[in-house]
Amino acid sequence: MTDTPETRQPNFILVRPQMGENIGAAARGMWNFGLDRMRVVAPRDGWPNERAVALASGAGRLLDHAGMFDDVSAAVADCTYVFATTARPRGITLPVVTPERAMQQARAMLAEGGRVGVLFGPERSGLENEDIARANAIITVPVNPEFPSINLAQCVLLCAYEFRRAEDATPPEVLEMARTRLATHAEVTALADHAEARLEEAGFFFPEDKAERMRRNLRQVWSRLPLTEADVQTFHGMLRQMVRWAEGKRRGR
Amino acid sequence: MTDTPETRQPNFILVRPQMGENIGAAARGMWNFGLDRMRVVAPRDGWPNERAVALASGAGRLLDHAGMFDDVSAAVADCTYVFATTARPRGITLPVVTPERAMQQARAMLAEGGRVGVLFGPERSGLENEDIARANAIITVPVNPEFPSINLAQCVLLCAYEFRRAEDATPPEVLEMARTRLATHAEVTALADHAEARLEEAGFFFPEDKAERMRRNLRQVWSRLPLTEADVQTFHGMLRQMVRWAEGKRRGR
Repeated sequence: MTDTPETRQPNFILVRPQMGENIGAAARGMWNFGLDRMRVVAPRDGWPNERAVALASGAGRLLDHAGMFDDVSAAVADCTYVFATTARPRGITLPVVTPERAMQQARAMLAEGGRVGVLFGPERSGLENEDIARANAIITVPVNPEFPSINLAQCVLLCAYEFRRAEDATPPEVLEMARTRLATHAEVTALADHAEARLEEAGFFFPEDKAERMRRNLRQVWSRLPLTEADVQTFHGMLRQMVRWAEGKRRGR
Repeated sequence: MTDTPETRQPNFILVRPQMGENIGAAARGMWNFGLDRMRVVAPRDGWPNERAVALASGAGRLLDHAGMFDDVSAAVADCTYVFATTARPRGITLPVVTPERAMQQARAMLAEGGRVGVLFGPERSGLENEDIARANAIITVPVNPEFPSINLAQCVLLCAYEFRRAEDATPPEVLEMARTRLATHAEVTALADHAEARLEEAGFFFPEDKAERMRRNLRQVWSRLPLTEADVQTFHGMLRQMVRWAEGKRRGR
């Protein structure tokens, strides 16, 4: 596998996982966000695990290539920095970071050639203090204190999401256009003029002392709406049709 | 329920969900991050749903209080702004936002008294275009394009996580202290002096022309390490013990 700053990834290390289902769901969560370096330490039900394979569905490749280790020490031996995911611990002196900060740090360390491991504990008990003592920092997900139980696959998903987010180039907001584009200022102005002229004829701006304010408010509506070129055409069509309808009425049709 | 800016929440609306398991897991994901306003539109297997209750475990209360609706229109009737979660759609003109941006916007709108709904589609097919047309904006999770399938409960989890993160006061990094505190500058300086004096006696700073640089480097090591008061005591103890050991040696013990 090529090792460029763009392809460098943290190793997600499942420590003594119990349920194959959770291993499979963890693989899916990783691959949803483009991560595929999984390590597994002493899985309870041996390896390979049929339930894991069944649940991983499209991410089975991660299981095929997962590194297998007898203990945490061996699994992190090549790592220059190790995070342990756990609720905020007692009796241990370590930095405690949010998933967001941790994955930003991981990206930065990987870019400089570091090797990063992230430990995830077994479902019931979580990581032992002995495992945590091998870490350089602790990741604690800021959960609802009334319901802090988050499961293995969820924790993996959130860390993978944050790793991707740390360099994600997706703009926070784009206007998706269906075969159209935003209207130009001139197009919106032409629409506003058209609407104002028709409404003037229809006697909309009444009474006279409020007319100026009503015109200004209507101009502001057109400017404020994120109209597309297609919207502008639709409104022009509506105005033309209203005129046709009104003329038909007047002629008694 | 009290309605203060702090307690205002978006309604998470599961549209025609199929598997009870996923409804239960969605409830857990919401409550993990403190959200408890669930609405359900036309669940495939009716309501209440035993599998949903079994999977929700500690978050069963959300199911008890979930609003039930026959169609999407009724479920969003009281909402002033509706997000639809879906892969980036074609043929529809709407803003497309990241989960992060969407939940920041939701917080802002809720703070001003708005009512926000977030639509989540059925497992297999996702939201229909007709459902999406009722939304003001689309939330698209920036997934791996090679493996874009994220499941209902995962999508709910990520949105709930982002809603909490949008006002989370957790500091990104804290140093967790086990019955200690970071050492003061004076304590670190005293340790550096102590170490330098002992190493001087031991002939560590040699040869003479490199001694000044070695001393400076060592000073920098002590300053750079995030030493706690307990660490400083440990190092003092080590230095004293080395001296005792060396003196014993010299006396031929």
